[in-house]
Amino acid sequence: MSRSFIEVEPDSHFPIQNLPYGVFRPLQGGDPRIGVAIGRYVLDLAALDEAGCFGHTAVHGKGVFAQPSLNAFMAMGRPVWQEVRSTVARLLDNDEPLLRDNDSLRMRVLRLQSEVELLLPAEIGDYTDFYASEAHATNVGTLFRGKDNALMPNWRHLPVGYHGRASSVVVSGTEVRRPQGQLKPPDAAAPVFGPSRQLDFELEMGWLIGAGNEQGRPIPIAEAEDHLFGLVLVNDWSARDIQAWEYQPLGPFLGKSFATSISPWVVPLEALAPFRVPALKQDPEPLPYLRHDGKAGSSSYDIHLEVSLQSEAMVSAERISASNYRHLYWTIAQQVAHHTVGGCNLRPGDLLASGTISGEKQEARGCMLELTWRGTEPIRLNGGEERVWLADGDRLTLSGWCQGDGYRVGFGVVTGLVLPALRMT
Amino acid sequence: MSRSFIEVEPDSHFPIQNLPYGVFRPLQGGDPRIGVAIGRYVLDLAALDEAGCFGHTAVHGKGVFAQPSLNAFMAMGRPVWQEVRSTVARLLDNDEPLLRDNDSLRMRVLRLQSEVELLLPAEIGDYTDFYASEAHATNVGTLFRGKDNALMPNWRHLPVGYHGRASSVVVSGTEVRRPQGQLKPPDAAAPVFGPSRQLDFELEMGWLIGAGNEQGRPIPIAEAEDHLFGLVLVNDWSARDIQAWEYQPLGPFLGKSFATSISPWVVPLEALAPFRVPALKQDPEPLPYLRHDGKAGSSSYDIHLEVSLQSEAMVSAERISASNYRHLYWTIAQQVAHHTVGGCNLRPGDLLASGTISGEKQEARGCMLELTWRGTEPIRLNGGEERVWLADGDRLTLSGWCQGDGYRVGFGVVTGLVLPALRMT
Repeated sequence: MSRSFIEVEPDSHFPIQNLPYGVFRPLQGGDPRIGVAIGRYVLDLAALDEAGCFGHTAVHGKGVFAQPSLNAFMAMGRPVWQEVRSTVARLLDNDEPLLRDNDSLRMRVLRLQSEVELLLPAEIGDYTDFYASEAHATNVGTLFRGKDNALMPNWRHLPVGYHGRASSVVVSGTEVRRPQGQLKPPDAAAPVFGPSRQLDFELEMGWLIGAGNEQGRPIPIAEAEDHLFGLVLVNDWSARDIQAWEYQPLGPFLGKSFATSISPWVVPLEALAPFRVPALKQDPEPLPYLRHDGKAGSSSYDIHLEVSLQSEAMVSAERISASNYRHLYWTIAQQVAHHTVGGCNLRPGDLLASGTISGEKQEARGCMLELTWRGTEPIRLNGGEERVWLADGDRLTLSGWCQGDGYRVGFGVVTGLVLPALRMT
Repeated sequence: MSRSFIEVEPDSHFPIQNLPYGVFRPLQGGDPRIGVAIGRYVLDLAALDEAGCFGHTAVHGKGVFAQPSLNAFMAMGRPVWQEVRSTVARLLDNDEPLLRDNDSLRMRVLRLQSEVELLLPAEIGDYTDFYASEAHATNVGTLFRGKDNALMPNWRHLPVGYHGRASSVVVSGTEVRRPQGQLKPPDAAAPVFGPSRQLDFELEMGWLIGAGNEQGRPIPIAEAEDHLFGLVLVNDWSARDIQAWEYQPLGPFLGKSFATSISPWVVPLEALAPFRVPALKQDPEPLPYLRHDGKAGSSSYDIHLEVSLQSEAMVSAERISASNYRHLYWTIAQQVAHHTVGGCNLRPGDLLASGTISGEKQEARGCMLELTWRGTEPIRLNGGEERVWLADGDRLTLSGWCQGDGYRVGFGVVTGLVLPALRMT
């Protein structure tokens, strides 16, 4: 197993097997640039490039790392990503002296993560949210339409999805203000205006598109993974009461447009390869454009996912959900193939997300709506408080990792603190 | 009435009263830049700026016109837009010798529109589509749910809208390929894959956001128009069969993500001011954050809108719909106030569109779905052909203008030719 000369704790999310990309700004000043996480450090790729370390690769002289987003690098495609990844892995390897034994270079290119600010990793042109967990779709359907009509007739035939709001996607750590809007209490004759009373999170994962496709030219399922740069954690904050009143007939709008948080480190597909597992069996067999037939991209991933909540009164966070990426019914490749089959163009930096990832077990439900069964089964927190929805001052944190033998390939966290609603003047 | 030294035909859409902005590239070569339409000409603002003509304004030295999109200029806000607009109007005025009598400057800054390519005027971060015509919402509701449940309970309380696809917004003239996708014929047990059989247009108008708002900070209705740069024509191409099968429960997705066409010239709000008309009466009175109370932005606009169709066999285009902007129930300011009330941030260049604009009369219906009453009442074209939906080779063109006394403030056209579906390999 390869090992870095940089010490990495066994439970760190960022061993040499991971090498996720992010955008950071040194706290002491300087322009945003691209880095790779290794243990407690971030490796400054812009500085490495300046030092000539990518001289033999396609990125050399293009300045793609001295930029405030990954978009230019992502647009270059998988062969270039792989070239850079193997260069970085070699530079960090315990047996490679180039960086290990060069104090001055190490000083220039390595920074403690605690001494940088992590920014949104990509400029997100469009954000699409799918609905790919059967347990989630079934639970939500049961809660809103009853058990007999829980899953819509289309659900097993196509990956249902919709367009989310790109402008309000924020990086982990950004505080989230409780939205106001129109709510219609069930017994009221008319809607009222006020702060959402049903603020929720959604445990999701997202994938960032690398190279895009030309408008009118679908991406075949067998090529879909070539367009995927990497994965992030996603919390699609939701105001259930705003959503319930507004969403007919055109779908969710303001109930999900105030904030969507993503984790700052983008984990490359290559780092997840050892954790591929067979995808769930699909019945009925989907139409040919969605069939894998043993081609690339037919697998799922074993990614352990957790949600924790810490209220203002609690001394530490408490886990309220434990789920797994493998609960998703549709594969990433199926979702990319479906998204583009009518000619819709994806662009570098586009974010596609899975929808809430719930499993069959109660503890694997990925949002408050399901965990509390629409408010009827409160969560009891260890400090004695109860929650049916999120309260002001709550900190909500998602985390996720793949467990290897003696190491973890992790996503870090995506966290956000709930601020009270603005007072309208 | 002010008049330009440049000759403008009485039925031109671009007299000195209009002065819409666009992005163009000279056919003979050169970088994209910003221009203003005047008669059959385009005035090159980048060249004017280089010549020092904006020396006294806030844009001077910023290079905002030597750019491939209006975004930087739009972000500067209304006082700057007004300064530039009055400078351009003065330069083009018949009584102003500076440009009129300077042959060399005129040669540098004026080009025939026939000698330039018009590009997408803005980099569109997010595209939101509303549903603001009561006749349209009622007709669609009647067709899909029956007369008694035509309008959803929320429709008169809030401007229903959803997020559209920004990546596939294209400029007028771009050819539109018939999308393929999953369709579920009513009598079929399972969906099939194939080209859409129900390709439709939607007659809409859109507005481009100038200065945006900070995430978490709503735009009050009285300030909404300060954020509006100008209006364009929008054709939101729709595949009704793909849409019908996919849209439950999260709304339209691929049925409307293959192409949305907009007109290249952005007509400033100032040019539309003489054509303000009272907005439709709203009943019930909306919640306070949507009330105008006589404040700015409470009006609608008298904009005549037309749709024409020309098949491959026809020698000229035939008008198939005549509608008007004033049929819209919700004002632009109400839609902006609603969009941001929960904290969603708008950014310069964002596109908000009205939804299909239908009037009460049959000829004022703004899409094939309504014009042919879901395929049951074919349109008979003058060459003898019939249409229930759009056919390959059809050219669909929207046009719109305000009729002044002896002049028109127009939007030009947004046009697109329907190409046959790709053959899937």
